[in-house]
Amino acid sequence: MRGMRKVILGLGMSLDGYIARPNGTLDFLFVPKDYSMGPFFTTIDAELMGRKTYEAALKMGGAFGGRKTKSYVFSRMQPPGERNGVTFVNETPGALVAQLREQRGKNIWLMGGGELARAFLKEDLVDELYLGIVPVLLGEGIPLFPSVFPQRDFSLLENKSYSKGLISLKYARARKKMK
Amino acid sequence: MRGMRKVILGLGMSLDGYIARPNGTLDFLFVPKDYSMGPFFTTIDAELMGRKTYEAALKMGGAFGGRKTKSYVFSRMQPPGERNGVTFVNETPGALVAQLREQRGKNIWLMGGGELARAFLKEDLVDELYLGIVPVLLGEGIPLFPSVFPQRDFSLLENKSYSKGLISLKYARARKKMK
Repeated sequence: MRGMRKVILGLGMSLDGYIARPNGTLDFLFVPKDYSMGPFFTTIDAELMGRKTYEAALKMGGAFGGRKTKSYVFSRMQPPGERNGVTFVNETPGALVAQLREQRGKNIWLMGGGELARAFLKEDLVDELYLGIVPVLLGEGIPLFPSVFPQRDFSLLENKSYSKGLISLKYARARKKMK
Repeated sequence: MRGMRKVILGLGMSLDGYIARPNGTLDFLFVPKDYSMGPFFTTIDAELMGRKTYEAALKMGGAFGGRKTKSYVFSRMQPPGERNGVTFVNETPGALVAQLREQRGKNIWLMGGGELARAFLKEDLVDELYLGIVPVLLGEGIPLFPSVFPQRDFSLLENKSYSKGLISLKYARARKKMK
């Protein structure tokens, strides 16, 4: 559907597919001086995350609210509703995405973590991938793509190299055409 | 050491880091018409693999021997020695690599699988990575980089895009300088 708000899974990861060390630390990620997520941020106005990612962001001094971008946190524990600048939701990914798509808006950033990514991939809700790949093998950590979910094919939209060996990849979901 | 034979871990994998489906199938891998491993093959004259990778290659109709490239198969079960065009070895990766480096020769291709890659990474024997990344999330499979091994930093040597969305990446191990 033309103009439909896309769900974009966007994250930095190690070459062996980890978005964090086993204890949640992100110290291996970096933003090279010739790279910016600025252009990406102008294309989204909603961000979705799992409860653990939310708590990790708070712990690292992150703040939510007071911006045009609405933040949604998936949680089975927290009662649904708006608090502290975020909206807690306990519906399925598909139900939330359907609601968001009933409203006009920009694209939707799925910012992690791996468990929520897997839930979205299971429901085939991820329209694009936007990955930053750091030139390190961590050897262990929290995976971006934990098994198991069904195979999902993509097509490469963009592949760029930046300083310090960061590469930035964009892919679009390649779904079979509906008749 | 200048001119030392390098160990290059070279493999194709899915975007979620799998070198094969759970049953060993490689049907998701492809070689685009504008891409060739030919130049790489001219730089190596030894290939190392694990016993499972060897058996999988045989099952797929692969043949060994009769080429200039020597094939080594790591196996704890098979008695060491040369048979059917390959040399079975049961020493440690470090011991074999040290032996090979005592001989003059080209680079050494570590062709898989994941368990052998992990053993090499544990001993910090991997000098370069040469990865082809296919634009698919398999959702499950045999990982190229199974945990756990110590962190290994790399620097990006090459990043190229090919048709059908294959990307080819080359990295060199970035070791701290010895005094």
